[in-house]
Amino acid sequence: MMKTKFAIVLSGCGVYDGSEIHEAVASMLAVDKNGSSYQIFAPDMEQLHVINHFAGKEIKPNRNVLEESARIARGNIKSLAEFNADDFDVLLFPGGFGAMKNLCNYAVAGDNCKVNSDVEHAIKSMYAKKKIIAAACIAPMLLARVIGNISVTLGNPSESERASLEYFGANHVDKNTTEVCIDTENKIFTTPAYMSASNISDVFAGIDNLIKEILKAGGLLY
Amino acid sequence: MMKTKFAIVLSGCGVYDGSEIHEAVASMLAVDKNGSSYQIFAPDMEQLHVINHFAGKEIKPNRNVLEESARIARGNIKSLAEFNADDFDVLLFPGGFGAMKNLCNYAVAGDNCKVNSDVEHAIKSMYAKKKIIAAACIAPMLLARVIGNISVTLGNPSESERASLEYFGANHVDKNTTEVCIDTENKIFTTPAYMSASNISDVFAGIDNLIKEILKAGGLLY
Repeated sequence: MMKTKFAIVLSGCGVYDGSEIHEAVASMLAVDKNGSSYQIFAPDMEQLHVINHFAGKEIKPNRNVLEESARIARGNIKSLAEFNADDFDVLLFPGGFGAMKNLCNYAVAGDNCKVNSDVEHAIKSMYAKKKIIAAACIAPMLLARVIGNISVTLGNPSESERASLEYFGANHVDKNTTEVCIDTENKIFTTPAYMSASNISDVFAGIDNLIKEILKAGGLLY
Repeated sequence: MMKTKFAIVLSGCGVYDGSEIHEAVASMLAVDKNGSSYQIFAPDMEQLHVINHFAGKEIKPNRNVLEESARIARGNIKSLAEFNADDFDVLLFPGGFGAMKNLCNYAVAGDNCKVNSDVEHAIKSMYAKKKIIAAACIAPMLLARVIGNISVTLGNPSESERASLEYFGANHVDKNTTEVCIDTENKIFTTPAYMSASNISDVFAGIDNLIKEILKAGGLLY
């Protein structure tokens, strides 16, 4: 049997300025454990800023998203500029503030946010080929911004997050931490992860469910 | 039932200059999933150096071990100077080159390596109280350096690693990736993780086995 091929897109290394590390690692584990394969990507760009995760303060100098993401990937990573939708079955975005600070700038621009051009190209090319796109935590906001009229979950988000999804044309579905929101028509799979999880076990369970639901929907893939 | 309390000691954030991220996250997950609790620590010190994990090259400026480890801990971390053996049942060291570059300097000094004073104090105080000490990947080398006459595994290590263990007075036991080496007399539990693993699933399985063996040996704890 051919393995389902995932492209996992990271946004740095650390919840406050990059990818949420547990969610990124849970994504890699769930894909591997369920018999699929992955290639990790990140955009080659400067981070919005760097946060000292011990003190909670911004520090200098700035860091590069691809170089920091490479820490989670153990060096086995490619620039997102090299991504080709023909090579993958699923495009997956773990969460962390990096998805809202680096992959797009929602954290500072809100509804007027811009999306990194490599990220936008990856999402649009997968969507055009009717392939699956998945996201965890806050990253579904990015899919809503790029695609518009889709159904996603952010768990049980704030009023302003709900308003932004509506502004982008998307429909929010409330879900518990380990549940998966499936938009069958648009092939969009999302799960809340640390948007609502209070422990690491639930994050791993939710992302494992996300991957299992994607693989169960194999009929969508081929 | 009281939860078994783990202290997990990190050495930075990234396999080439700090903690191996998958092993650190696997440790947190296994402890939580098996019904125990953890507090993360790291020494408040400068790293030996910083490696760009994309290019594999040393970069400047240097970074702080506690601040970078805080990325894996989502900010919930304490300086190892605050560690008190009375508060914990198990002291656990995930691997990564940080264990050999920051927690001690084996990577540059070999058999003549020095151990960070907070790390040495944590290991010696747990050992003196006959509490469990555990390590994954290359980190058992650190326990051998500090304690000496113990049995550990590094999987199937190189001749020079075997010679160093012998020089420190320790006994090596060959183990497969997901197996656990248990020195019952000294209450030392070790597992190879990425010393021999070729995929992330085996790393998580091995560290889960490590935690399960520790909890099964509950009679040692209380």
